[in-house]
Amino acid sequence: MATRGKLFVVGIGPGALEHMTLKALDVLRRAEVIVAYTGYLKILNKLGLTRGKKVLATGMGEEVKRVQLATEEVLKGHDVALVCSGDPGIYGLAELVFRYLDGMSLSIDVEIVPGITAAIAAASILGAPLNNDFVILSLSDYFTPWNEILEELRAVAKTELVIVLYNPSSSRRHDKFSEALKLLAEARGDPIICVVKNAYRDDQQIVVTKLSQLNPQLVDMNSIVIIGSKRTQRLRNGCIVTLRNKALKLN
Amino acid sequence: MATRGKLFVVGIGPGALEHMTLKALDVLRRAEVIVAYTGYLKILNKLGLTRGKKVLATGMGEEVKRVQLATEEVLKGHDVALVCSGDPGIYGLAELVFRYLDGMSLSIDVEIVPGITAAIAAASILGAPLNNDFVILSLSDYFTPWNEILEELRAVAKTELVIVLYNPSSSRRHDKFSEALKLLAEARGDPIICVVKNAYRDDQQIVVTKLSQLNPQLVDMNSIVIIGSKRTQRLRNGCIVTLRNKALKLN
Repeated sequence: MATRGKLFVVGIGPGALEHMTLKALDVLRRAEVIVAYTGYLKILNKLGLTRGKKVLATGMGEEVKRVQLATEEVLKGHDVALVCSGDPGIYGLAELVFRYLDGMSLSIDVEIVPGITAAIAAASILGAPLNNDFVILSLSDYFTPWNEILEELRAVAKTELVIVLYNPSSSRRHDKFSEALKLLAEARGDPIICVVKNAYRDDQQIVVTKLSQLNPQLVDMNSIVIIGSKRTQRLRNGCIVTLRNKALKLN
Repeated sequence: MATRGKLFVVGIGPGALEHMTLKALDVLRRAEVIVAYTGYLKILNKLGLTRGKKVLATGMGEEVKRVQLATEEVLKGHDVALVCSGDPGIYGLAELVFRYLDGMSLSIDVEIVPGITAAIAAASILGAPLNNDFVILSLSDYFTPWNEILEELRAVAKTELVIVLYNPSSSRRHDKFSEALKLLAEARGDPIICVVKNAYRDDQQIVVTKLSQLNPQLVDMNSIVIIGSKRTQRLRNGCIVTLRNKALKLN
């Protein structure tokens, strides 16, 4: 059963709208219905994207509801934009959409519109810390048992991968972030650690320090934490780079 | 010594120009000088971005030259866009720029304009394979000894991370890709493996199969390879998803 309407799962990138792709803007402009987290409506209004459209918004934790609403509108024949921050495929709604459609045996046309994920945004502000192999991990234990998260962190801490932490901390689990830092210190000694909070927003904050010097209280759910490898350096100009070609002579 | 000109290191995203950000397009439009790999000039011409501008292009392997040329133009007082495919900070030119400026003790104004990296592009085409923790590794042994790459691959193969391989193979090192596959088979058995070749280009190709069934000859330098974890599934609708909330009931 193919429908006339189409579901676009749209990544709007990090805080600043200028980091949205041309495709994402085009899809949001053309969509007949926009489904979003209530917190994003202000951003979409600013771009005039909600004017004259049906807008359906749900709150934090109501992701399944958002997917259901979006699907219902597609089944009515509308083109629908389901909005995600960052990229829809990295801790976003894309997976939920496909699982929901599969579970309900619904065959509708879906397109994932990729966006700049928080790790890339944070890295571009710091310099080039992700210019060699790296790993992205979430410290949220909402879906994954904390023990499994620690086990994974332990395995990668021993490698030479730069480590990017999403959802590093929250008011509910400050102690767990401290536990993760302790584990990292045991495996890596005292590496460079960078925190980018509210990337590309008005209240953006950057902390670059050594792991032993970090105040964990600075880190919240809107922070991205990057832990360097042996290849990671702070240059004299303050930029953080992870060396790819260690031997390269440039002058 | 701060200059009037500014250096923008601009990620133009994957193959399709529509996945470029608004910021990247704006910077390319305003720049007085564009420095790029010769292979990208056709793309930039298509957008009319080279018209009336100074354009400096160098070939494959001349990355340092490109950085030097871009810096010289900034020192003359121009705003310069140094073009990268994907994101400038992921196996891109951003690191080289900062190291060059540091090595030459040059203080010029630099802004990294983030772009959609190949892993995110490939994932958006497949479904949502990166929706849980993942690692990005390059199999290129141009800068890193092959033994170190294998060691890193061995460490992550044992974890539950989805693995994304950049630069998986080339005519020069087909055997090495086969060696990497063998190692992955030993650690993971027969996981789902996806290849996206020429993402978002006219000649885009997708292969989704089991590791044991993959023909390594299909994979080249323009391919991204994604190796699933135990959480990675192929749904009845053909989409690849990596489950984040394994227990979630959706119907």
